[in-house]
This record gives sequence, structure tokens and C-alpha cells, in this order.
Amino acid sequence: MSKRDSPQDDGPRFAYGGLDRVIHERARLSVLTSLMTHPRGLSFGDVKRLCALTDGNLNRHLKILEESNLVTIKKGIDGNRPQTLCRITALGRKRYVEYLSVLEQVLLDAASAVDEDPAGKRVRGPVNA
Amino acid sequence: MSKRDSPQDDGPRFAYGGLDRVIHERARLSVLTSLMTHPRGLSFGDVKRLCALTDGNLNRHLKILEESNLVTIKKGIDGNRPQTLCRITALGRKRYVEYLSVLEQVLLDAASAVDEDPAGKRVRGPVNA
Repeated sequence: MSKRDSPQDDGPRFAYGGLDRVIHERARLSVLTSLMTHPRGLSFGDVKRLCALTDGNLNRHLKILEESNLVTIKKGIDGNRPQTLCRITALGRKRYVEYLSVLEQVLLDAASAVDEDPAGKRVRGPVNA
Repeated sequence: MSKRDSPQDDGPRFAYGGLDRVIHERARLSVLTSLMTHPRGLSFGDVKRLCALTDGNLNRHLKILEESNLVTIKKGIDGNRPQTLCRITALGRKRYVEYLSVLEQVLLDAASAVDEDPAGKRVRGPVNA
């Protein structure tokens, strides 16, 4: 065992098992974040534009999110025009909040390292200023 | 255009293009975070344990990170034993810090939504207490 950084007593502290793969994928993280900030729902076209996704990509990711019961997708009418409404479910909100707490841990772990670079210079704001 | 949440003036604000796919993948995010916090490097075995990865998975992801010049992998000797030493490169640190700043933006966007649930109740700590 290396004595270099003596990490032998740690468990798998960087495994981040709570980074739910359904949510972590970049396009789905975008879609869910847009829906979190619009709890009354967004049209398919709005999600597509806010997340800069193609029709095909958005359809594919919405299907995965719907199958996981994280979003609902309803055909409806807005004025005279047909519209597909996407909403995040209560389960989706719960799972998203759980995911965020793991993401916060990644940031905390990383920030402690970023504050000191290998040459000993700080590369971000001071911690004990 | 839906008037529901009036998001028609927004650009693709949830696209998060800066979430570099090489770094964002969960196993590689784990590996890079472990190496960020151990700037002098970690042995293959230490990374494997800290990130809870199998030999095959870690090899695969290290190869991708090495090809992107984000880590170096060197065969060496620790005492009498052969050892593979993994280190994050200067480019790796730079790209990781850039990635983190986008991750912080996701958290900020999400936190504003998480603070109010659809029923108007706060689901996290108070903002204006």
C-alpha cells in the first residue's frame, strides 16, 4: 500500500452512488432543472428551446423520465393549438432534491481541493481570510 | 406559444453546455474528484477503492481521461512492488474547475426552484427568515 497520501483508511468516499444515472445524464438534468423551475409545466417546445435539444433527443429523454415516473407528458390544447405539456411529478421533485444533495457533496469535496493547487497557491477565493 | 409560464423570452438557459461530457460521467467525475483531492497522485488500487470501481471499469475510464490529457498514468515501483500511479494534469485541474463552475450554476438554478414547492411551502431551509 502506498504511503504517498495515506488514503488507506477511507471507504469509497468518492463513489457518489446517489448520483442517480437517470437524472445525472446532461440532457435529462437540463430537462428536469427546467421543469423544477416551472412547476406548472412547460410545453414540449419550451423545454426544447430552454434546453437546446432536438425533437428527437428531447422525445427520447422524456420517454426515459416518464418511464421512471419523474415527469408526466400530456397532450392538450392551448387556445386553438394542440400542445404537449411536460410536468415534473412529486416523485421527480423528491428524487431531484436527493440528487442535488449528492451534487452538493461533490462540490464540497472538490472545493476543498480547488482551494489549494499543488504549488500551494490558492486558485479560488480565500477560505481563512 | 404558451402563456403558462411565459418563458418565451429566455434563451437556452438550462442547456449547460459547459457540463463537459468527459468529466460529467459519474465514474469519471468520481475519479477526477479523488485525484483533485490527492494532487501528488493515487495508486490504481487506491482510486479503485475510493471510487468503488472494478478493475475493468477503472481501466476504461482512465484510458478516456488519459486520451483527453486530463490524467497521467505511470508505471512505477513503490518499495519493492510495481505500482500504477494516477495523477491529474494541469489541464485536468483547469477543465475540472471550469466544470465545477457550471455545476454550481445548476445548483443555483435548482435551489431557487427547490425553495418553493408547487403548493407554496418551502421544502428546504428558509431564504428570507
